Amino acid sequence: MDNGYWRLQSRCDTLAPESFRFEADAGPLLGDAVRPDRLIVQTQYISLDPYLARAMRSWQGEGEGCDRGIVNGRIIAKVIASGCTEFRAGDIIAGVGRWQAEQDVPSNRFRIVPSWMDPPTAILGVLGASGMTAWTGLHLAGAQRGETILVSAATGPVGSVVGQLARARGLRAIGIAGGADKCQHAVGRLGFDACLDHRLSDLGGRLADVAGDGIDIVFENVGSAPLDAALGVVNQHARIMLCGLAAHYNDVDALQLRNFRQLLYRAVTLRGFITAEHPELAPKAARELKEGFLAGRIVHDETVMDGIENAPVAFLEMLRGNGFGKRIIRI
Amino acid sequence: MDNGYWRLQSRCDTLAPESFRFEADAGPLLGDAVRPDRLIVQTQYISLDPYLARAMRSWQGEGEGCDRGIVNGRIIAKVIASGCTEFRAGDIIAGVGRWQAEQDVPSNRFRIVPSWMDPPTAILGVLGASGMTAWTGLHLAGAQRGETILVSAATGPVGSVVGQLARARGLRAIGIAGGADKCQHAVGRLGFDACLDHRLSDLGGRLADVAGDGIDIVFENVGSAPLDAALGVVNQHARIMLCGLAAHYNDVDALQLRNFRQLLYRAVTLRGFITAEHPELAPKAARELKEGFLAGRIVHDETVMDGIENAPVAFLEMLRGNGFGKRIIRI
Repeated sequence: MDNGYWRLQSRCDTLAPESFRFEADAGPLLGDAVRPDRLIVQTQYISLDPYLARAMRSWQGEGEGCDRGIVNGRIIAKVIASGCTEFRAGDIIAGVGRWQAEQDVPSNRFRIVPSWMDPPTAILGVLGASGMTAWTGLHLAGAQRGETILVSAATGPVGSVVGQLARARGLRAIGIAGGADKCQHAVGRLGFDACLDHRLSDLGGRLADVAGDGIDIVFENVGSAPLDAALGVVNQHARIMLCGLAAHYNDVDALQLRNFRQLLYRAVTLRGFITAEHPELAPKAARELKEGFLAGRIVHDETVMDGIENAPVAFLEMLRGNGFGKRIIRI
Repeated sequence: MDNGYWRLQSRCDTLAPESFRFEADAGPLLGDAVRPDRLIVQTQYISLDPYLARAMRSWQGEGEGCDRGIVNGRIIAKVIASGCTEFRAGDIIAGVGRWQAEQDVPSNRFRIVPSWMDPPTAILGVLGASGMTAWTGLHLAGAQRGETILVSAATGPVGSVVGQLARARGLRAIGIAGGADKCQHAVGRLGFDACLDHRLSDLGGRLADVAGDGIDIVFENVGSAPLDAALGVVNQHARIMLCGLAAHYNDVDALQLRNFRQLLYRAVTLRGFITAEHPELAPKAARELKEGFLAGRIVHDETVMDGIENAPVAFLEMLRGNGFGKRIIRI
């Protein structure tokens, strides 16, 4: 493919493969002169993040051209030419850019990927926003040794780190994931005490069976189904940390909760939180995640697919829950 | 009617008039000898409280015989004979008892209605659990001068006090109520800045029109419809205090929220709270409510119906939202 970029055909309620269009660009940029505070980069990896669905549907999001339907998301790129003093040619950087192989980007949206980070794509997962969200949510929940935590999307980039951090802190961790292989992975590789397949029937009943003395903390990444099951087994004063609604990013359906009365009867607190609103927590979180990663205590899972041409379909597959850990396109 | 009491016919999902049965008792008790730590009382008022619906449907609740389907609720009664030192014949007391004209009750479920309380039924409303719930919820929400609060069931026993306390503290108060007369009452008598009729169409749109800079605190007594409308206009970091689910006490339907994504996007906290779990707040709350009541700054609204025979139907009417303020049966 030439050096085009992905954009949306139109605003829409539900994303499908035909919602995306590959737009021809002016061609390769590698010979162009770089402007001040800009970078010319070669994109190496594109991060397929659930939160992008909102920007794709509304044309409101981060990055240049988003308001005109151009897809922007987190990328890892190599600097070809730099118009600032912060970066040099050859640097590997991470930030927000188009789904495009070669691009001209503002330097202030990027930072260096440290050389100790192997693979560098860990900055898109356990050592990036996903890991920070996991750490921040556990901190804001006031997680205590001996408590039981329930984690939906347990093998996803956030959930997998929540489970690993929680176990390291002496909590009992129960996961929810889609399919037997993911559940096996959650217990065998990530250290969850148990993991339930939400594709099988009676999630609520099976959860009650493994919940023991009940659930103290719920780390909710998904939406209606796991949240409703969780409400059936929450303890008095349970804390529900809401950090994602993956099941609902590509529809306009209402949230449906049969067990919502427990919010009142059990005096539950449900808290939506945004990691970026807690910068004071970032240094400590980053340090702990780095130490755990380098020591091999916190594993980074990813599912990589080659080819920018596959980005939209892989993104939609990710929204349906297919793949382990961070979902990434390699160019 | 003889000295019978109301009980449920059977466990049920939905209460209807035929769910209740008037059970003949052994007859008047007034000549009986009183046992130690018991009282023989004449019931004067029965409080029709929404929370009773749960106990009626499940046969689990407070008071003797509830597990056999006997209705117990808050009452005001006159002591005829006392088997304890705390109360004397002639005392007016409030506590939990049957829906029965004359009854033999445990003394430890009752307390004196102070003589300054006029009407004594204020202990069932602004000077009792309803007022305490209003005060406690505002306190736990951290309500600040200049904020905007949205109150569902604005003319109900809790909502009416929330509105009055909030206005006195310099908040802007918007109510939601059923019918033009209630909305007029909320603004004219209770001091709400605005009140919206939820029986008219497009509650969400009309709420957006009056919400100004958005809603900082939601005091939710009702359930799906007002909560969903509120989520459409909440500000970043809004606090939703959930103290009741009046719309859902008599059904098994799921909660449905179209605007639930705002819980995440606006980093909202939704907190179910139970007033009895915060006894440390009670002395200050009781003092403020008493002072406001005696000074005429906080009004007590009630709707009284005569006759124990009318208790079940009046209770079901109350669940449908009919009547102002505290709904009471006078015997």
